[in-house]
Amino acid sequence: MNTNELDFSIQNIPFGIISSASNSKKRVASAYGSNAIDLTLVKFNGPLLGNGVAEKVFNQCFLNDFMELGRPAWREARQTLQNLIKENKLPAESLISLSQVQNHLPAKIGDYTDFYASKEHATNVGTMFRGKDNALMPNWVHIPVGYHGRASSVVVTGTNLKRPSGLILDPTTKLPYYSKSKKMDIELEVAFLVGKGNNLGEPIKFDDSEDHIFGMVLMNDWSSRDIQSYEYVPLGPFLGKNFGTTVSPWVVTLDAMEPFRTSQPHQDPKPADYLTGSSVHNAGDAYDVNLQVYYKTPKSKDTLICESNLKYMYWTFKQQLAHHTVNGCNMNTGDLCGSGTISGPTENSFGSLLELTWNGSKSLNIDGEERKFLEYWY
Amino acid sequence: MNTNELDFSIQNIPFGIISSASNSKKRVASAYGSNAIDLTLVKFNGPLLGNGVAEKVFNQCFLNDFMELGRPAWREARQTLQNLIKENKLPAESLISLSQVQNHLPAKIGDYTDFYASKEHATNVGTMFRGKDNALMPNWVHIPVGYHGRASSVVVTGTNLKRPSGLILDPTTKLPYYSKSKKMDIELEVAFLVGKGNNLGEPIKFDDSEDHIFGMVLMNDWSSRDIQSYEYVPLGPFLGKNFGTTVSPWVVTLDAMEPFRTSQPHQDPKPADYLTGSSVHNAGDAYDVNLQVYYKTPKSKDTLICESNLKYMYWTFKQQLAHHTVNGCNMNTGDLCGSGTISGPTENSFGSLLELTWNGSKSLNIDGEERKFLEYWY
Ligand SMILES: [Ca+2]
Ligand SMILES: [Ca+2]
Ligand SMILES: [Mg+2]
Ligand SMILES: [Mg+2]
Ligand code: NI
Repeated sequence: MNTNELDFSIQNIPFGIISSASNSKKRVASAYGSNAIDLTLVKFNGPLLGNGVAEKVFNQCFLNDFMELGRPAWREARQTLQNLIKENKLPAESLISLSQVQNHLPAKIGDYTDFYASKEHATNVGTMFRGKDNALMPNWVHIPVGYHGRASSVVVTGTNLKRPSGLILDPTTKLPYYSKSKKMDIELEVAFLVGKGNNLGEPIKFDDSEDHIFGMVLMNDWSSRDIQSYEYVPLGPFLGKNFGTTVSPWVVTLDAMEPFRTSQPHQDPKPADYLTGSSVHNAGDAYDVNLQVYYKTPKSKDTLICESNLKYMYWTFKQQLAHHTVNGCNMNTGDLCGSGTISGPTENSFGSLLELTWNGSKSLNIDGEERKFLEYWY
Repeated sequence: MNTNELDFSIQNIPFGIISSASNSKKRVASAYGSNAIDLTLVKFNGPLLGNGVAEKVFNQCFLNDFMELGRPAWREARQTLQNLIKENKLPAESLISLSQVQNHLPAKIGDYTDFYASKEHATNVGTMFRGKDNALMPNWVHIPVGYHGRASSVVVTGTNLKRPSGLILDPTTKLPYYSKSKKMDIELEVAFLVGKGNNLGEPIKFDDSEDHIFGMVLMNDWSSRDIQSYEYVPLGPFLGKNFGTTVSPWVVTLDAMEPFRTSQPHQDPKPADYLTGSSVHNAGDAYDVNLQVYYKTPKSKDTLICESNLKYMYWTFKQQLAHHTVNGCNMNTGDLCGSGTISGPTENSFGSLLELTWNGSKSLNIDGEERKFLEYWY
């Protein structure tokens, strides 16, 4: 096979949901090179996926049944596919060019939580709205701050979203008025999907947390800054966020991420025991993954506006999961947890237009055009 | 039949999910007098529920399939049952003493939102934490403030919940420490269940909102005040709430609520058009329903600690639903929207221990014992 830089490698073996012109039924697939691999047409003989299990869990319109099987089964699927690729034994009929498949939302998401785990992002936003001295709230360095998002409006990347309307503050009258949002923003995030959940009242221990994480997706937490800033006091973001959140169709498993494991930012003060478990302080629970944001107007080329990295997350996914359940909150297979906007230390690594334009006080040059937020003309 | 004050009247005809000793399968039921009515054993011949539809939607472990049929079908079910009761024609085998049935969560809840719709409650909480002059945030009188809650931990009333642990602020060191919650609270709420949803990007208009509401349940939004107050800045309540929320098993439809319709509190300033539709200013969109909270210790009798009323809600359910979707957010059948704590104007009508004890500054007398929050000994 002819694989280029953008193709899926044998290390990756992501999982997702596809349909195709020749078969409109949604089903589970993987991807290799420039092809999707229809997993309903691949034979799985291993101890966990043999005996009809694979046929059952891959003939589904969501990954949930497969995810519920647990990490040993995810590994078996991955290794089976890697072996078939190496031995050139994938059935020809299972391979469909990625350009010919339609991607769908990978999981049925019961609950969606969004964290706020980049110190640079939290500091930038805090500086803008509360000044440099009160930028970071005192609780931020002690707990992975998070909030509940809206699961129903999480859709797959590429889904058209409508610009939201709502009440926006008129700064002169100090009164709100109804309008389409004029400060539409993006948030560069990575999210994890819960593979195995926990029962209500039984926390997931930090040391066990990786076995509960199926994998990761890219996420854009589309945000309306003018709606959000009016509504969010005192109970948090609501309509400024829940008109839509997009996630990438392919879920990359934690096993695929292993080669990219690295240390997270130094955590000082040392977090509470339930957030560190038996691990060495600041152990390698982060992942070194370059993240980029491109901006495109109706006329422009794709223009790079942000280069960040997943390793900038201060609070790791393991810590987020341990925190989320420390009070006994139950996670279910398919639940989605967003990292929060991942901003890095330099200005070109900020993960939102809010930060990149410092709340609209400066413009971005998009291939010759000037932009602050996601503008439209009305 | 011998119906006493606490029995279900012919006006009510609620819907819920039961199982019983003789049939452990969950199924849809109604209730009349002191009996559950197993709806899988009742014949429905109407245009919407005949032809096998009733058999299909009532043989389910959640109400969702029935709710998805829409308001005309809910009405047909209600009227059929009322006629059968009047004519004494309910099949004997369909009646099971309520003392013999087990109640279950009525709906599969995709998303759960909690509002903050009682002006008295918001003012009380604001006064406690920000002082009398800044009690009510300026946005509060313009929009029904709400936030996303956790759907996975909404369980039926009677489910045992474990006291949550988490990080709590030590006021002397100003540092958090890990502990079981010492300020466990309740919140008296009523919630509505979405019957018919809307597509992403297509708001539910105020004037159409009642057709999207299936009915109401009582809700207790169990809250840990010490966990909540540490975590909630700036993104809202999270672990202080999501360890558990209980809802009553029987859903009372809007049609059953009709006789209790009354005016909501006067809304000044007049809300935006999308929150009023074509209705008369402060039309009769509230419901006059007495609400009571009883407190019981291991030793005490049930002791009345609060008498409130659903009509104290400033923002109506119709306004909440129109607000929730004005930005295009999609609601699904089974989604749950809580009213927020319903406090009235008098001290004995406050719907939380936080308010009743003014954040623990005074005690309640529970049948001779002294209580501030839901204490335990450790
Ligand atoms: Ca976010
Ligand atoms: Ca509440
Ligand atoms: Mg969003
Ligand atoms: Mg709660
Ligand atoms: Ni008026």
